Formats: sequence, structure tokens, C-alpha cells
Amino acid sequence: MRLTNLFTKTSKTSPADEVSKNAQLLIRAGYIYKEMAGVYAYLPLGLLVLENIKKIVREEMNAIGGQELIMTALQSKDTWEMTDRWDDKKVDIWFKSKLKNDTEVGFGWSHEEPISLMMKGYVNSYRDLPVSVYQLQTKLRNELRAKSGIMRGREFVMKDLYSYARSAEELQSIYEQVTDAYMRVFERLGLGDSTFFTFASGGSFTQFSHEFQTLCDTGEDTIYLHRERKIAINEEVMTDEVLNQLQLNRDELEQVKSAEVGNIFNFGTKKSEQLSLYYKDEKGENQPVYLGSYGIGITRVMGVIVEKLSDDKGLLWPESIAPAKVYLARLGLSEDVVKKADEIYATLQERGISVIYDDRDERPGTKLSDSELLGIPYRVVVSDRLLQDSTYEITERKTGQTNILTHDQLLAKLS
Amino acid sequence: MRLTNLFTKTSKTSPADEVSKNAQLLIRAGYIYKEMAGVYAYLPLGLLVLENIKKIVREEMNAIGGQELIMTALQSKDTWEMTDRWDDKKVDIWFKSKLKNDTEVGFGWSHEEPISLMMKGYVNSYRDLPVSVYQLQTKLRNELRAKSGIMRGREFVMKDLYSYARSAEELQSIYEQVTDAYMRVFERLGLGDSTFFTFASGGSFTQFSHEFQTLCDTGEDTIYLHRERKIAINEEVMTDEVLNQLQLNRDELEQVKSAEVGNIFNFGTKKSEQLSLYYKDEKGENQPVYLGSYGIGITRVMGVIVEKLSDDKGLLWPESIAPAKVYLARLGLSEDVVKKADEIYATLQERGISVIYDDRDERPGTKLSDSELLGIPYRVVVSDRLLQDSTYEITERKTGQTNILTHDQLLAKLS
Repeated sequence: MRLTNLFTKTSKTSPADEVSKNAQLLIRAGYIYKEMAGVYAYLPLGLLVLENIKKIVREEMNAIGGQELIMTALQSKDTWEMTDRWDDKKVDIWFKSKLKNDTEVGFGWSHEEPISLMMKGYVNSYRDLPVSVYQLQTKLRNELRAKSGIMRGREFVMKDLYSYARSAEELQSIYEQVTDAYMRVFERLGLGDSTFFTFASGGSFTQFSHEFQTLCDTGEDTIYLHRERKIAINEEVMTDEVLNQLQLNRDELEQVKSAEVGNIFNFGTKKSEQLSLYYKDEKGENQPVYLGSYGIGITRVMGVIVEKLSDDKGLLWPESIAPAKVYLARLGLSEDVVKKADEIYATLQERGISVIYDDRDERPGTKLSDSELLGIPYRVVVSDRLLQDSTYEITERKTGQTNILTHDQLLAKLS
Repeated sequence: MRLTNLFTKTSKTSPADEVSKNAQLLIRAGYIYKEMAGVYAYLPLGLLVLENIKKIVREEMNAIGGQELIMTALQSKDTWEMTDRWDDKKVDIWFKSKLKNDTEVGFGWSHEEPISLMMKGYVNSYRDLPVSVYQLQTKLRNELRAKSGIMRGREFVMKDLYSYARSAEELQSIYEQVTDAYMRVFERLGLGDSTFFTFASGGSFTQFSHEFQTLCDTGEDTIYLHRERKIAINEEVMTDEVLNQLQLNRDELEQVKSAEVGNIFNFGTKKSEQLSLYYKDEKGENQPVYLGSYGIGITRVMGVIVEKLSDDKGLLWPESIAPAKVYLARLGLSEDVVKKADEIYATLQERGISVIYDDRDERPGTKLSDSELLGIPYRVVVSDRLLQDSTYEITERKTGQTNILTHDQLLAKLS
């Protein structure tokens, strides 16, 4: 992508109405646009990051047999009354509106109920189970406050997977499969070392639910972490009884701030019974289906990555989700420099290496600082001075380490 | 994809509450699920078709320099009051709700206003223009009635592109570029021969807007078509004056039913002036930006394709958007048949040919009729009888033509 073709621009100053680091940086770099508090549009570079995150999540969900579909934003009152989650006193984040005939409708803040009702049409016998379905969808939640940028929005993208099983054991085995898949997702997103399987409050069926908490100073949660065992306890369930149960000593635990990037929940058969989701077992008898629910906040995880990895120069993306691998900065306007930069741009693209090509007539300082603000993993500089020795300068965004390489060395390094 | 892994099932009977052919067939085939009238979820096979359509549209929009982004569902009252389109008396399809602090919010039924306000942050000088941005987004419209399946929904996917230009001429040139790109889209979707550039009512800036109307007996529109010149007039603007202007004779025109699959609209500078979207020209003077708006109904076009191409056996997808190219039907359970079918499934996948593998223990009749209902372009049959001669039977869904081929002939045919 040539920067002269990209409509967004960087900004030196942070928007006055943003307190979160993630929104400040993402807006300055032209990745997102604030529509209203907690509601952000994703501009071309932001959309690329979002799609890269989705792709990783999709691959890992498909790898464990998840079947992708997409449910609807519009939700019917009848559906949610079946589980007593329509009433605003029970769920206080509904956005609701009315059809022309005065029928109330809601806007999807979650999808356990409609997706499980849909499954009733397809789950009849034990032969139809187990099955896992998932979606990557925009959720709408009427949050009282929204000051955390894309870490907690009124409109955000979530991956939610739902598993349907014949028994508690079968559900447990899927639960563990999804846990492993989630750890692979966070690994690939560059959060593997800082994300911990965390015990949190359960529901009527299980004592605990589980969260994936990423260490993050600006996170909303507090967890008690056992680094060696790679597990944590959310403060909401941190009691002596729980410590005993998990065979943990309080003094082995660190109290840390963290952000919840994923959660998994075992509903047992409660919701299925409320929704009359039964299957016929081998004897032809009706049995309630065991439901598990598993979420990853796609936009939130993008926000957490910004909060954790960015520095005083700007954003810093892991290569797996960066909008491009290379920021090609052409310094100067001499015929040689333009020709060489155009050539290297073409060569990298031919090799399938994604490049943002800064072909603007801007001062070198602007180009170099924009490359840092945008957070692209590698910056390659083409300049008259370097061309005298037929070399290129490559700088790694993460370490700031710079090397002077020949054409072949450069291609070897980036391939 | 193995059918034993797919959770959806086909149904012999049409849902009682659907009158439209597209919804009846898509539900029977397990492509979509009805959440409420005009609101459909897309199940795995339906989502594949939808994503294939999006991919074609995306490629053609990128080819003309469109930059993809994604705006938000939540919309602020202030934005839409600037152009007097917030009031329900002016726009009668708003879904609206309220934040906790009683601030009114709307749900995006269109995005000209917010996207143009966003552009104000990036369009300053004549050097920043022209620029075109687009999104593939879910729109929410509070339609009074919704009986046309996915051809007119309360929740649907649309591609909307917006062009920003410096002059009427520059806008006109983009307008023509987009027109050509749209015709390529409809060509690739298999609708090229039946989709016509149509003169429809304009706005305050231009006499006409233009629609892309696809001949369709169940469409909502009536157009007057000049087949040779490949243009049409929407009945809403069909007057003697317009006929004269376009140098058409009434008796050369056919009156036909059609469905609007795309539209393009020239707003001139009116909306930019309402929203204060100005750029500085070469002399440093403020000039209003010329806005064009261009839509393709992604889910609608899917519905129109079903209405037009399906037959009494079921769906019929053009290869460009089918959920798979091949339906591999394994008839019988002998060791040989299973082995051979597994082999051919692996071979086709290795060659990058998408396959739905019917590996179910179902009667041959069920498999054959399901292959037709699902509308997959080619059906390949593996059976004991055929294996005696080391042959495979291939049937084209569109023509019903069947051939008996050897292994090599089959691969050559499908590659």
C-alpha cells in the first residue's frame, strides 16, 4: 500500500476527549475513529489489524471443529424471556427498540439463547452431538460508562463459540479443547507469556467459570497469580476455601492488574432445559443438552495489545497481526532513490511480504516518526547516502536495532 | 467439508411462515435461519456464499482504489440532524434507542452522514482528493413489512462506497468508474446478462440517480427495458420527456419486473455543505466536496440469485459463489467405495477444488436429491457399479448433463 493512496493521516496530538492510551494512540495513528463514547469505526489500517486477529481466531476455532455462522443483531423478546434475561432489571445493558407494530426488539449483547434455539432445529438425536458453532460478530451493549477506548465498548466485535454435548464429561472434554485453542490464539497474538488461565465465579452449574486474563496495568480486573503454575484466581472468588481447593498458598501469589481477553463458561443443562433443547439418547429417551459458551473479545484484545506493547514512540504490533510487515521509507526525491524504492516495493510485494510504502513528499523526520507511530515491525530506509554503498537500512520496531544490509541480505532477512 | 461434520440438515418441506421462494429454499437447504420476519442468520453454507459474494465485491472495489473501513451501527442524533434525516417523519425506518443518560441513539440504516463527518478529519486540501472509501456492513432498517426473505430485510448486509471529489467532472468520472466496476461484479455473480443500468429518480443535484436492476419476476420494481442498448428506465421516472431526453421510443421498450441490486447516487455538494465538508483549492479558498454514494445489497443479491436461478429441484449457485464446486456423493458402504471416495475427496482438496463430501449413511436417493437442493455446480458419484469400470459419474447441476469419466478425465474436467 502506498501512503499517498491512503486517506488517513497521523496526528501529533492526542484527542482531548480520550483518557485511554489505546484510543489515543489508535486515533493519532489513524487506525480508528470515534463515533461516540465507546463506539469506534475501524479505518483501513485498523481494519487490517482486526481482520488479522479474526483470521487467527477463525483458524484455531476451525481446527477444533468449530463451524462458523453468523447470528443477528435484532433479537426477539420471546427468546430471552424463556431464560428470564429480557427484563432490564436482570440484564441492564440491553439496547431495545420497537418494530412498526409496537413489537419490542432487542439488539444482541450475547447470543446463547438465539443460537441454542436455532440448534433445536438440528439437534434431535445423540448422533447429532457433540457440535460446536461460533461467530465473529458485533455486539451492542448499553454500558453506563465507556472510557477504556476499544477495551470496553458499547459496540465491539466478539468471537463467541457454543458447544453442545451429550454429557458433563463430553462437555468437559470440549471445554479443555477450547482452553488449549484459546492459549494458542493468545500465543499467536503475542500474549502467550502474559495471559493466564484464571478461576472466576461460576454459575448455578459449576463453582467456577474460567477467564483468560492478560497482565495489563490499565486492565479492569485484579487477579492473584501463580506464575510457575501459570494459573490465577480472580479476586471475586479469592477466598481461603478456594485457595485450599486449588492447593495454592496465598503467599505464593502475586496481586496484579489484568484485562479479561477471553472467558469460558459451563452452563450444564440449565439453559437447555429453559429452552427445551433436548436430544434423544440411544434408548430413545429425551435428555437435555450440555451447553458450553466461550468468548474472545476481538476488539478488546486489540486494545490490550496496544496498552501492553506500545511505547512513547507509538504503536507496536506483533508481526502476526500488523497491518504490514514492512514500512518502506523513501528518504529524498532523487531519481535514483525513487527508482530503487519503487523496485524494492515491487520485489517485496512479489514475494508476498506486505509493505506500507511511504512515498510521500515529507521530511525524513516525519517519515521516520510516522513509521514508529504506526508500529510496523520493520522499517526499511532507502536514501541517497545508503545507495552510494548499495545498501538499505533496516530497523526493528520492537528493539530499535538497526542494521545496514545489502539487497540480498535484506530480502533474506524479510523472507 | 464432510457432511457428517456439518450440523445443518436439509428439509423436505418448506417453512409454513415463508412466502418468498428464496427464504423457503435457503431454509430448506439449511443455508439460513429465520430469527424474525426480515431477520435471518446465515448458517455455515449460507455464510460461505455470503463471503464469496463479499470477496468479489471487495476485489472490484479495491481495483478502482476503494479503501475499506467499517463504520458503526450506533449513530448519534447530532450527526443526522445536520442533514435533517434524524426525524422519523423524514426517515421512517430508523431503529432508535437510548443510552443510560437518556441520550438518543440510532442504528445505522445508511452511512453517508457519519462517514462524511469522519472524512472531515482527513480532507483538508485539494491534494487529499479524490478519495473513495467503502464498507461491507450490516444495516438495520425498521421496515413496515418484510415478506421477501433476504431480498428485503430489517437486517441485511450492504456494500456502500462513498466518493469524495473536487469537481462535478471528477465526480462524474468516478461515477463512471464505479458503474463499470458494478457491471463487472454482476458479471462475476452470474447476473451480467440480466442486469441493466437503469435511470431512476435523482435528488436536488441531479435529475437521475442510477440503479442496477436485475430481471426478476418476484422483484419489487417495474422497469422499461431497451435490451439492445442495455439500459432501462424505472417506471417512477418513465415520462415522455425522459424518453425524449434519452432518445428512446416507448415501443422499443419492454415492461418487465426487476429487483434493484445496486444503486449509485450523485449528491453534488449539498450534503458536504450541510456537514461543512470543505477542501482548500489551489488558491487556498474553501470549496465544498462533491459526494457520490454507491450501494450493492449483498444479501439481497444472494436472494435475487436464488429467485432467478433455482428450479424445482432446489438451489443453483454460479460457480463463483457456490459454497463448494463439487458435491461428492458416495453411494454404498462397501470398503472399495469408501476407500475410493475418501481418495478422490483428498485429491480434489489437494488441488484446491472445494468439495462437500456426502459421507453420510443415507439412501442414494436422499444423497442425490440433497446435492440438487444444495445447488452445488458439480455432483460426482462414486459407486460399486461405477468402480467396476474404474469410472465416476459427474453431473452438472445447471444442465443436468451427466458424463461417465475416468479418474484423469474427472480431474481434468474439474481443474
